[in-house]
Amino acid sequence: MISMSKLTPEFWMARALTLARRGLYTTDPNPRVGCVLVKNRRLVGEGFHARAGEPHAEIHALNDAGGAAKGATAYVTLEPCAHQGRTGPCAQALIDAGVKRVVAAMQDPNPQVGGRGFAMLREAGVEVECGLLEAEARALNPGFISRMSRTRPYVRLKMATSLDGRTAMRSGESQWITGPAARTEVQRLRARSSAVISGVESIILDNSRLTVRAEQLHLDAAEAIAGRQPLRVVVDSRLRLPLAAACLREPGRTLVATCSQDGERRRRLEDAGAEILTLPPGYDGRVDLEALLTHLAKEESANEVLLETGATLAGAMLDAGLVDEIQLFMAPTLLGGEARPLFVLPGMERMAQQRALEIEDIRAVGRDWRIIARPLANST
Amino acid sequence: MISMSKLTPEFWMARALTLARRGLYTTDPNPRVGCVLVKNRRLVGEGFHARAGEPHAEIHALNDAGGAAKGATAYVTLEPCAHQGRTGPCAQALIDAGVKRVVAAMQDPNPQVGGRGFAMLREAGVEVECGLLEAEARALNPGFISRMSRTRPYVRLKMATSLDGRTAMRSGESQWITGPAARTEVQRLRARSSAVISGVESIILDNSRLTVRAEQLHLDAAEAIAGRQPLRVVVDSRLRLPLAAACLREPGRTLVATCSQDGERRRRLEDAGAEILTLPPGYDGRVDLEALLTHLAKEESANEVLLETGATLAGAMLDAGLVDEIQLFMAPTLLGGEARPLFVLPGMERMAQQRALEIEDIRAVGRDWRIIARPLANST
Repeated sequence: MISMSKLTPEFWMARALTLARRGLYTTDPNPRVGCVLVKNRRLVGEGFHARAGEPHAEIHALNDAGGAAKGATAYVTLEPCAHQGRTGPCAQALIDAGVKRVVAAMQDPNPQVGGRGFAMLREAGVEVECGLLEAEARALNPGFISRMSRTRPYVRLKMATSLDGRTAMRSGESQWITGPAARTEVQRLRARSSAVISGVESIILDNSRLTVRAEQLHLDAAEAIAGRQPLRVVVDSRLRLPLAAACLREPGRTLVATCSQDGERRRRLEDAGAEILTLPPGYDGRVDLEALLTHLAKEESANEVLLETGATLAGAMLDAGLVDEIQLFMAPTLLGGEARPLFVLPGMERMAQQRALEIEDIRAVGRDWRIIARPLANST
Repeated sequence: MISMSKLTPEFWMARALTLARRGLYTTDPNPRVGCVLVKNRRLVGEGFHARAGEPHAEIHALNDAGGAAKGATAYVTLEPCAHQGRTGPCAQALIDAGVKRVVAAMQDPNPQVGGRGFAMLREAGVEVECGLLEAEARALNPGFISRMSRTRPYVRLKMATSLDGRTAMRSGESQWITGPAARTEVQRLRARSSAVISGVESIILDNSRLTVRAEQLHLDAAEAIAGRQPLRVVVDSRLRLPLAAACLREPGRTLVATCSQDGERRRRLEDAGAEILTLPPGYDGRVDLEALLTHLAKEESANEVLLETGATLAGAMLDAGLVDEIQLFMAPTLLGGEARPLFVLPGMERMAQQRALEIEDIRAVGRDWRIIARPLANST
């Protein structure tokens, strides 16, 4: 039994966030959203958004509550929509059900529509409040927020490293630095991502499939989760991807981002199963990484993307200020000074040029450690 | 008030360990030892060993208890000595005071005398028990135990590194990777050590003083602690140490370990304040590191030594299996793939050769993180 004194607005919003999290691996490209309906300090309905094309969280909660929704307070992790989607505007549905008050964790991050849901509710006489547990709600949808507010996906860089900062032997041999628990976490990172980006060098070296494998997720509904494969993106300025690359034969799509104009090579890769995206070259003659991310946001509705690659592309993304989060899986082992580095950062000569990070979390994952860090924007 | 039910043997031994820890920075070359005398579930006396030449923990506790020691139980973190030191055998003192029972955390690790104190007590009719909180007691004196049981000091390797495993820029510039809290911890590591070892390359690069600075310890009695400077040891196979090196002008001794036969250079370094230790060269023509450690244990009574050096000597010590503990102070920053590595490990080509570690602790130290790891003996 939960004591009555604990039934605070925070309690109900936390419940809505917990519900929202159930959609972590499945709502893409939509945000994860949860909703709880409360009347006289009692839960009368709840729901979450499970999958694009299915009802939003508010609709599920209203259906769950039935007539009890009348006079209730809705706790919802994101501003109810005001647009005519497949299920009609959620704000209208809340009004129609007689909901008295709406408490949202955050406004819709889409600058085109943010605030419209609240306005619609207020016009109908519904009390509206916004900002309860906002940080937690934002953390649930970093990709959706980034796409809506910056027209860019949220880029999470994942690397497996030894304690001395090495990702592979000089030969490229790297399997396996980290243990099975860390590899499961990486599978889950893939599963929550809209796309996985890798450099062609890494693909040539490891022949990675870049897929979500149900049996490695160790999650309920793993099969259903793995049914949606993140878009595989290979950064391949000169179209060097082997036609026999394993990633071309996996379920789901493989997009090869290039600035090569070689039509013949392009056709052969297309025949092998690739989609080719030709981008103008950046200042260094290679794929313009910012243009690639903009494309992924605009054309592929990519929210979170996972960057799984080697030191050169990782360093280039970092140098371009395009990495939002670093997840370092650190194994308790040493590979020595000849082994491959984590980041190639050209021109780094003085301590004053160091790239400062903020460490957000360090915790054990099996025998390894996961370090979550963020590049500090003010360091160059 | 502590409830009576908590007054277990573990409680009293924990108290004795806490007392012993007060000698952490001062007992060298003696072990840190604490003693508690208990009668009728009441503390009747306690003490710890503070400084070589001063009374042992048991004597302090007996003096504290006076006549109340009669019939008491002594909880002591190390087997009472049976030899005639400056204060007479502690075992005899306990017998003379009428102590009824002795509970020790561990036996004396010196194979020449281990068990003699217990035997003396038992012969006099005192009950003896050994092994209570033994792991904790051993952790308090890793150096003393190592010196007694292996004729080698306990070697603690300290390194400051970026998140990508770099200790300095390519130029050698490294001040400061870590913040003031980490530097205070390093000062404390020096202060608890019998000796600090560095390679001549590091000294040339940084002109390190390798001293304990009272003002950086942030400890009570910091001035007294800094009064005992650990022996500074410079590994310098070819006697390249500059005559103007700062470490030669500091209080305390500087020992230059070499295999050079250059008598002239030797004299000039001695004139500059160094002591020269000539060792036979190892298989690689450089100072035999194992011979150096044996010398430090035998001739300098070195318990814990702190290795503060660059990637080459650190890697050589690691490769020789001479590192007992690694303390990595990891700063939330990236220095890039051109910066200096943590370890040079020659001949490391395949993943199968990786050096496995056991991570014992990771925790925040100011804005940095301290990782304590141990090389696993079975990895090569």
